[in-house]
Amino acid sequence: MIKIGVVGGTGYTGVELLRLLAQHAQVELIAITSRGEAGMPVSQMFPSLRGRVDIPFTDPAKSPLTDCDLVFFATPNGIAMGQAQALLDAGVRVIDLAADFRLKDIAVWEKWYGMSHVSPALVAEAVYGLPEVNRAQIRNARLVANPGCYPTATQLGLLPLVESGCVDIGHLIADTKSGVSGAGRKAEVGSLFAEAADNFKAYGVPGHRHLPEISERLGIAAGKPVGLTFVPHLTPLIRGIHATLYARITRDEDFQRLFEQRYADEPFVDVLPPGAHPETRSVRAANICRIAIHRPQGGDTLVVLSVIDNLVKGASGQAVQNMNIMMGLDEKQGLDQIPVLP
Amino acid sequence: MIKIGVVGGTGYTGVELLRLLAQHAQVELIAITSRGEAGMPVSQMFPSLRGRVDIPFTDPAKSPLTDCDLVFFATPNGIAMGQAQALLDAGVRVIDLAADFRLKDIAVWEKWYGMSHVSPALVAEAVYGLPEVNRAQIRNARLVANPGCYPTATQLGLLPLVESGCVDIGHLIADTKSGVSGAGRKAEVGSLFAEAADNFKAYGVPGHRHLPEISERLGIAAGKPVGLTFVPHLTPLIRGIHATLYARITRDEDFQRLFEQRYADEPFVDVLPPGAHPETRSVRAANICRIAIHRPQGGDTLVVLSVIDNLVKGASGQAVQNMNIMMGLDEKQGLDQIPVLP
Amino acid sequence: MIKIGVVGGTGYTGVELLRLLAQHAQVELIAITSRGEAGMPVSQMFPSLRGRVDIPFTDPAKSPLTDCDLVFFATPNGIAMGQAQALLDAGVRVIDLAADFRLKDIAVWEKWYGMSHVSPALVAEAVYGLPEVNRAQIRNARLVANPGCYPTATQLGLLPLVESGCVDIGHLIADTKSGVSGAGRKAEVGSLFAEAADNFKAYGVPGHRHLPEISERLGIAAGKPVGLTFVPHLTPLIRGIHATLYARITRDEDFQRLFEQRYADEPFVDVLPPGAHPETRSVRAANICRIAIHRPQGGDTLVVLSVIDNLVKGASGQAVQNMNIMMGLDEKQGLDQIPVLP
Amino acid sequence: MIKIGVVGGTGYTGVELLRLLAQHAQVELIAITSRGEAGMPVSQMFPSLRGRVDIPFTDPAKSPLTDCDLVFFATPNGIAMGQAQALLDAGVRVIDLAADFRLKDIAVWEKWYGMSHVSPALVAEAVYGLPEVNRAQIRNARLVANPGCYPTATQLGLLPLVESGCVDIGHLIADTKSGVSGAGRKAEVGSLFAEAADNFKAYGVPGHRHLPEISERLGIAAGKPVGLTFVPHLTPLIRGIHATLYARITRDEDFQRLFEQRYADEPFVDVLPPGAHPETRSVRAANICRIAIHRPQGGDTLVVLSVIDNLVKGASGQAVQNMNIMMGLDEKQGLDQIPVLP
Repeated sequence: MIKIGVVGGTGYTGVELLRLLAQHAQVELIAITSRGEAGMPVSQMFPSLRGRVDIPFTDPAKSPLTDCDLVFFATPNGIAMGQAQALLDAGVRVIDLAADFRLKDIAVWEKWYGMSHVSPALVAEAVYGLPEVNRAQIRNARLVANPGCYPTATQLGLLPLVESGCVDIGHLIADTKSGVSGAGRKAEVGSLFAEAADNFKAYGVPGHRHLPEISERLGIAAGKPVGLTFVPHLTPLIRGIHATLYARITRDEDFQRLFEQRYADEPFVDVLPPGAHPETRSVRAANICRIAIHRPQGGDTLVVLSVIDNLVKGASGQAVQNMNIMMGLDEKQGLDQIPVLP
Repeated sequence: MIKIGVVGGTGYTGVELLRLLAQHAQVELIAITSRGEAGMPVSQMFPSLRGRVDIPFTDPAKSPLTDCDLVFFATPNGIAMGQAQALLDAGVRVIDLAADFRLKDIAVWEKWYGMSHVSPALVAEAVYGLPEVNRAQIRNARLVANPGCYPTATQLGLLPLVESGCVDIGHLIADTKSGVSGAGRKAEVGSLFAEAADNFKAYGVPGHRHLPEISERLGIAAGKPVGLTFVPHLTPLIRGIHATLYARITRDEDFQRLFEQRYADEPFVDVLPPGAHPETRSVRAANICRIAIHRPQGGDTLVVLSVIDNLVKGASGQAVQNMNIMMGLDEKQGLDQIPVLP
Repeated sequence: MIKIGVVGGTGYTGVELLRLLAQHAQVELIAITSRGEAGMPVSQMFPSLRGRVDIPFTDPAKSPLTDCDLVFFATPNGIAMGQAQALLDAGVRVIDLAADFRLKDIAVWEKWYGMSHVSPALVAEAVYGLPEVNRAQIRNARLVANPGCYPTATQLGLLPLVESGCVDIGHLIADTKSGVSGAGRKAEVGSLFAEAADNFKAYGVPGHRHLPEISERLGIAAGKPVGLTFVPHLTPLIRGIHATLYARITRDEDFQRLFEQRYADEPFVDVLPPGAHPETRSVRAANICRIAIHRPQGGDTLVVLSVIDNLVKGASGQAVQNMNIMMGLDEKQGLDQIPVLP
Repeated sequence: MIKIGVVGGTGYTGVELLRLLAQHAQVELIAITSRGEAGMPVSQMFPSLRGRVDIPFTDPAKSPLTDCDLVFFATPNGIAMGQAQALLDAGVRVIDLAADFRLKDIAVWEKWYGMSHVSPALVAEAVYGLPEVNRAQIRNARLVANPGCYPTATQLGLLPLVESGCVDIGHLIADTKSGVSGAGRKAEVGSLFAEAADNFKAYGVPGHRHLPEISERLGIAAGKPVGLTFVPHLTPLIRGIHATLYARITRDEDFQRLFEQRYADEPFVDVLPPGAHPETRSVRAANICRIAIHRPQGGDTLVVLSVIDNLVKGASGQAVQNMNIMMGLDEKQGLDQIPVLP
């Protein structure tokens, strides 16, 4: 059994990671840390885990993290960058679900995240954990930066276009919508039920942290800088991201076939038949991205629809997928849950 | 008192019209028709109206519609076009909340609505009831075509740009999101709570009936054809439309000022300060459109955010606004409800 | 115009009070205080009030509260008891929307609210502001304790039974369900959308603060102590309370008629016809309580269904109703909003 | 592999059954019938099943149901009673998820379901499929009547009390709340999102079909008739039932211990520690019932809180549990999904 630790298990990506790991046949969870909740049984905070996760939260300082084969950081931004090196030095591999190692450009990172980066060397080493792009490097990585939720849905929807160079990459548009769990299990007025239910709004239009992440990765895929207008919205879902992506066609293609070929061997990307409209609930609680391609009225604007569960393919499921790749397991191990519909 | 009739009062635009008319000081509701529910007190179907609307639904054939000063059609598409002429002949003015008279191009209408139009002459006569564009003509109109919900939010968000010619009108994008009441009070599986709650999806991407309506009207505003990509989405709201509009800038402007000047005298359009993100709940149950203008990262793509309540400014409230204009009343009469938040 | 002040206008009862007062023809809002938000325009925090409430929040110490005819406290528990006396001394009448003056038994109050009461004399003076019971005393009161939300729905549903003595008052059961706005606009994990949506739970079964309030008032109505089992639940509504009340019949009656007669002259209590099931949305955003009475299978257990909007008849609407009574205005003034349905 | 057929796979219990069966290691789904959708791939109607259920719906008449080891009826009431005998004659075992065989008293059944029963002999033979009561008989049953959703939550919450005779069984109260999926995937106005969202109501207070089912089974458990007041409510959940149960104590007991002992060996009933409040989301998408016992203020009224997912332990999960028992499999096989939270 592979020994696993989780740093910071009290948020939504934490509890989702526990749900997935507890159903994974080849791992053993040996530590879940929480400074604030040390001593409390995990299943007391999350009764959904009663009988399935039997250990308590432990203080990070007293937790056997260096005995683990792999440690997940399900912490706020800025934590993993201070703690990863020690674990790596102890031979533990690390997957960070936060943003600490997602951007290669440290100056850009520091500007958007408002802090100084304390581990620039690890930024250079870290592999961006989007398996559909970096599977080979993930396999051998010591440190994986798990992608953001919007970036996962957006990149998977745009990659075939950007890689093949058939659209104007200077003017991409990503109109994205997220459920409220994307804001985390933090007590904030804007995430209250009475604020977010029966309400829809855009936010962060002047700039959102996922913009530089998407731009950098798409730029790498294209081999040159891309221009992206990124508009996130908050919608009254618990889980789910829907990305509606617009690109101006510069070279005609069989776009449906382009996507089908690009993802033919991908176990967690499902290209829907022509004319389809993926629903977020069709991926609820499962590690899958479903995509549909439209060319309305045969014009020169392509519309790509891409949906994921932000807590699964957009966070914890993708982290388990990366773990499977790193540990040489079947990539689908522990990730075969069927979406919950209705 | 102005005598009012409502044809088809059992849907959501119908009950919303009744809510507004019952609070209007200068009208008297003398008939609400429903073939299926004739005889049933209106307040039995809609207990929210107990003590406020005391008449029953009546059979259309037996209803005193020709005694009215003005009749609203809150009926499915295709009804008003068969009945409006007789009312007009009797001196009754008519507002159709459905789509029968919205498109001037009858061939286009017949293609999108899948039926033959039986009153082409009235199409020519009808005035498109967007007061922010056609106030003067509405005043004298016998027949007003009340705009669709998406078209209202989209046009109000794009009109200043299209009229001033400062953006590429060949490649406009309207990414729009609607609450489920927009689908009407019809028993359809797709509108069930267990289908539409905790779910988000695009629909009608290959083509939606509001596309030709918006295109035709924006084309009239621009003086030449516009190109529009229109992608509607269903979001788990009861009420509310959020239009996120994208336009490529072709001539620099003070866009904030452009919008503020365009709508300076409009009682029901509120241009928010720079940097704002309008929420649908900020207009819930009220006849108002709130708009914000963004130019992310100072690039060449303009983003306009426009919200309305689809049942009020997107339907029944706008119909009452048109009625006020037609009848020479204060345009704001009966429309001073403050949005319900939270 | 009556001069009104609001202490603590940043919560849900505060913004609801502003919505109602701004539509009231005979009052003038001269101060809204907030220590934390002093200087911010009210309509910046609550864009729904743009163009309708034009004053900023002000520091309590610098606010002209003593110039008011009446001041509402929309503050957390424990604030009004420290400030009311000074206002009363200045001739200002006071309505407290919190719990400071709701219980006559100070020892009980201190036990449930976990603090010492600093104004016992005012507790004795304060009138419990349920107009359906205390209208005459409210009229002349200097200080009114506005009832809690659960207590309003529960008392209105049980009063005719308790007053007439036809049920076993030693074993009343109130199974009550509240929307999430009842928890206030406070940043708490349990009230997050991702916690409270698509979820239903009981809470406070061992004891809830509204239990002693209901018990004390029903005991006064009965002339002897009552026994009450009170189980509140949290349900994914923004607004609304549904009380399902059970009482064992001890003397046969025409219960429908009993309720109709008890509330015959009440403008804000609506007894539905036999067989009805009131929905919370039938009172959404309006100051009304709707009640239905059932005797399933003709047995000896009576079931009363009672619904209110917790922010209106359960808080701010009732407060305005009390203000109207205190000020000698038409009791319905400013409270004629029709419920918003759907 | 055990060969399974499903009659009527287009409703919510049908698709949930498919989700569970597709994750079950020892069964093979060989037929899903639907008269209306014959020929359509199952995964076209339910995209959540893409890649997991690869067969199409087939016409019942042409489906190899008699080749199955076991057939589930996920049909409306009244279908299974006409078709079960032929399958049983062919040696196929049958589980009916509808109500056809739930009541032993045929006269009562005919009164509540409004039709004549065509298979009285099978009613006598059928075993009521609540494993916590009838496990031994289920093992050998040819025909199992899968319990209703409310009856499952209510019986599991009341059985220890009724069996031990420590409460007044003449005056039990079940105040129950259900998510909207309980109404099925039927196009009905009352189940529309715009009707059921942000709304709470009781329904069927004069009488609901689950009342006689609960009464009959509790009566069998008690050895004498019980008196039950049963009030169901509709709450804006997709999935979930919360039963709040009230009983008057007639003999003192350690009630917590009573429940723990009664369910000590039950894999799918979880008695929570004292003071707990089970949430519906703690069982979402999983085959489990969680129960808490309260005795507020030490009085003589006991309050039991019982939650299930109406589509799992309240329908399809319980059906799979029954199948496991009938087929001699591990009762937990295919039912180890961890609840999805948030």
